[in-house]
Amino acid sequence: MDSNDISFLDNVLDIVKAERTDDVPLIRFKHPKELEEILDLDISKGVDDVQLDKCVKQILEYSVKTHKPTFKNQLYGGTDPYGLSGAWIAEAFNTSQYTFEVAPVFTLIEIKILKHVLYLFGIPDGDGIFSPGGSISMFYGLVAARYKAFPEVKRKGIRNLPELVIFTSEDSHYSIQKAAHWLGFGTDNVMRIKTNECGQILINELEIAIQKEQAKGKHPLFINATAGTTVLGAIDDLNAIADVCQKYKIWLHVDACWGGSLILSETYRQKLSGVERADSMSWNPHKMAGAPLQCSIFLVREKNLLHEANSASAQYLFQQDKFYDVNYDTGDKSVQCGRKIDAFKLWMMWKARGDSGLDQLANQTMAVAELCLEIIKNREGFKLVNERLQCPNVCFWYIPKFMRGKNVDEKWWDLVHKITPKIKELLTLSSRLMIAYTPLRHYKNFFRLAFTFHPIANEQQIVEMLNDIEECGEMVTPNML
Amino acid sequence: MDSNDISFLDNVLDIVKAERTDDVPLIRFKHPKELEEILDLDISKGVDDVQLDKCVKQILEYSVKTHKPTFKNQLYGGTDPYGLSGAWIAEAFNTSQYTFEVAPVFTLIEIKILKHVLYLFGIPDGDGIFSPGGSISMFYGLVAARYKAFPEVKRKGIRNLPELVIFTSEDSHYSIQKAAHWLGFGTDNVMRIKTNECGQILINELEIAIQKEQAKGKHPLFINATAGTTVLGAIDDLNAIADVCQKYKIWLHVDACWGGSLILSETYRQKLSGVERADSMSWNPHKMAGAPLQCSIFLVREKNLLHEANSASAQYLFQQDKFYDVNYDTGDKSVQCGRKIDAFKLWMMWKARGDSGLDQLANQTMAVAELCLEIIKNREGFKLVNERLQCPNVCFWYIPKFMRGKNVDEKWWDLVHKITPKIKELLTLSSRLMIAYTPLRHYKNFFRLAFTFHPIANEQQIVEMLNDIEECGEMVTPNML
Repeated sequence: MDSNDISFLDNVLDIVKAERTDDVPLIRFKHPKELEEILDLDISKGVDDVQLDKCVKQILEYSVKTHKPTFKNQLYGGTDPYGLSGAWIAEAFNTSQYTFEVAPVFTLIEIKILKHVLYLFGIPDGDGIFSPGGSISMFYGLVAARYKAFPEVKRKGIRNLPELVIFTSEDSHYSIQKAAHWLGFGTDNVMRIKTNECGQILINELEIAIQKEQAKGKHPLFINATAGTTVLGAIDDLNAIADVCQKYKIWLHVDACWGGSLILSETYRQKLSGVERADSMSWNPHKMAGAPLQCSIFLVREKNLLHEANSASAQYLFQQDKFYDVNYDTGDKSVQCGRKIDAFKLWMMWKARGDSGLDQLANQTMAVAELCLEIIKNREGFKLVNERLQCPNVCFWYIPKFMRGKNVDEKWWDLVHKITPKIKELLTLSSRLMIAYTPLRHYKNFFRLAFTFHPIANEQQIVEMLNDIEECGEMVTPNML
Repeated sequence: MDSNDISFLDNVLDIVKAERTDDVPLIRFKHPKELEEILDLDISKGVDDVQLDKCVKQILEYSVKTHKPTFKNQLYGGTDPYGLSGAWIAEAFNTSQYTFEVAPVFTLIEIKILKHVLYLFGIPDGDGIFSPGGSISMFYGLVAARYKAFPEVKRKGIRNLPELVIFTSEDSHYSIQKAAHWLGFGTDNVMRIKTNECGQILINELEIAIQKEQAKGKHPLFINATAGTTVLGAIDDLNAIADVCQKYKIWLHVDACWGGSLILSETYRQKLSGVERADSMSWNPHKMAGAPLQCSIFLVREKNLLHEANSASAQYLFQQDKFYDVNYDTGDKSVQCGRKIDAFKLWMMWKARGDSGLDQLANQTMAVAELCLEIIKNREGFKLVNERLQCPNVCFWYIPKFMRGKNVDEKWWDLVHKITPKIKELLTLSSRLMIAYTPLRHYKNFFRLAFTFHPIANEQQIVEMLNDIEECGEMVTPNML
């Protein structure tokens, strides 16, 4: 096929549409070895378009339909169809976001979106960048904080600096561990502070930990507050943490990758109160808000810091003798060289819906989660992990009939711990529901239902999910475990 | 629009097709401020589908058509239409590549592709991962090397290690500087070794530098060899560097982001001889081979190293009590958490074309570059930077008539330095050609034409590009500079 012959894209549209009909199952689970047997994945010999079409259809048959309301396995799900449209255009226009000359409009769009998002989060004079995911956004925060405190780190490295310490809650995202390794801090320098039952960092424990590290002669550099923990959806007390940061002169980063979408709701954005005091923060519109993967935003309060910290001034790319205003060549702020135009899909969603449309979706999402919480609270056999809704996460156990009314001791909990994944297995194998489960701290394996903008679940769908959990839960017998 | 209503995708297909007709210009350049005036980018208020369609069309009108043969501004260009089909499917299926359960087929496809690519590069027992771009792939290499030499770095950080030194050529990609900063080495510990005229690292200079750093008590950790430098397309003598690495026990990384696509050609792959001795390497199929942005592969010789170095064992995601073989949950090898299924678009290209189809495209690309070199060598007014073709990069100056036959002194070269960007400006403003220019070492600003698989240029197109350069070159007068 010639480079300009994009006729196969017609097939793609048809294939995608066919896979979105209601009767297509969520998942046709096969074990890895079985799947390897079924599929023709060999690439050494080429095939014609008819054969390729057949192969692709088979691949998609066995792929998970993440757009279905029964896909509740992760903190993302269906995509906003406008966002998907933007993603397709971005792919078709194959553009790297580093210089104005190759990405004139997309550069302006990124600037526009960032300005609006900075304004919403109450950091109107800040700066930002789109990054390939929340983990890399966390890296950006740590690099910015370290550079601000010790600008010589860029040339001299971390070796001659004091021992730098990072504080985060025990419920926070694991990417901070990967960042501590990669960026040279070492994971031993990540202090994981205890949380309360709801998953919020304990402020007094945080302060004690800071004092302890200072007493050891270490330098507290960075506090990572979380607005929406991965499992419980906890939002740390951002104002209290900001006070601590101010008192001890520590950088405040807010990981709002999950909960940041609540900023879109006029009703619920007060849950993020204090975020406007952050030195840096991250938000992933590809999670709750349904932008196609990946769409992650890193924001920083100090205007020129991203450029100062990250620029390498490559002369083949960021020439200063260009014929236009090179302040619009924004790529040297990035740790990447080539960079996808992730801002465009978010722009499409926002342009189509406006602030008010997104506000409505955020409110609906929270309303559905509240409804789900209420239903579970009152339904026999279901037990909530906690009753307070922070983000649209609802966490609970299913207790099969044979276990109810029994003595709730360690052995009983050990059984729950084994039953939860078994129920998940049955739900998956029967294609009823893909749901997340995990242990957390002293909590044994439980389920997490997290709701997103797309698709908005309704009451009937929630009840069906719970019915399915109950049905599969009642299939579990002790000798299966 | 409801989440399941993907009707706007029909518009997208039409819009994309309309923007690919021959009479659509490469670029309608406007300066940033002018463009801001023209476009309606405001997102605070939503618009209906008709208005959105209009806005999108206007955005695309002013966007660069990177699929045109006259887009020669970067090391990427048009996309493989099969790759684009794969990218669209990947977006529509919105899947993160971390666990088998959410990405069953895509996981197997990534494994399949990596195995094939490892085999091609002569590292059949190695491991690999898709990363968001060549810069991050470079980070992976440095992290792997450091962890292999000092596994305690993961917990303890870089602070208690000896001073680690990195070696690279002066023509190598700037991402190594960003990596040195982010990863805590410091850019002062990047030793930039001189190259020969063709852009290849000088082996004796490299060895002298290693000895010098050792004498200072520093630890030479990592040599970055380049297979396809950004500007000249130089391929370092990989075997000679591998010998040095062996002698001094230093990690060999090969940055083959650009030149790695030559592995697809049975004829030209010998240019990469020695790459099979690398400890790690990177290749960006999104550059020469035309996979849509981004598609970058990092490979490492030691099988379990990626997992050991990068794993954080998040219990909510990589549970060990799942009902399937969790060895297929490959995400903990990655520095990212959510990760796009970039392997799929490459799989589509490869499945459609097979090894032989890609071999043919690579050969055609090199043939076009050779032809271009020959034409330029023999054309008056054009002066090659060097006559040796390594990758399909052709670098040259245009010397306007008024400068020919004059005394070639520093002043003459200063004028060339100013003329080159002026010609580029005229080419861009008239939408004839977008071409890269840069200075390099002692070379004053020159042009780079780099050829890619899509679209394959023909002789007529090459001659037209050179005619356009000549015409614009003759418009330049000294008082314009």
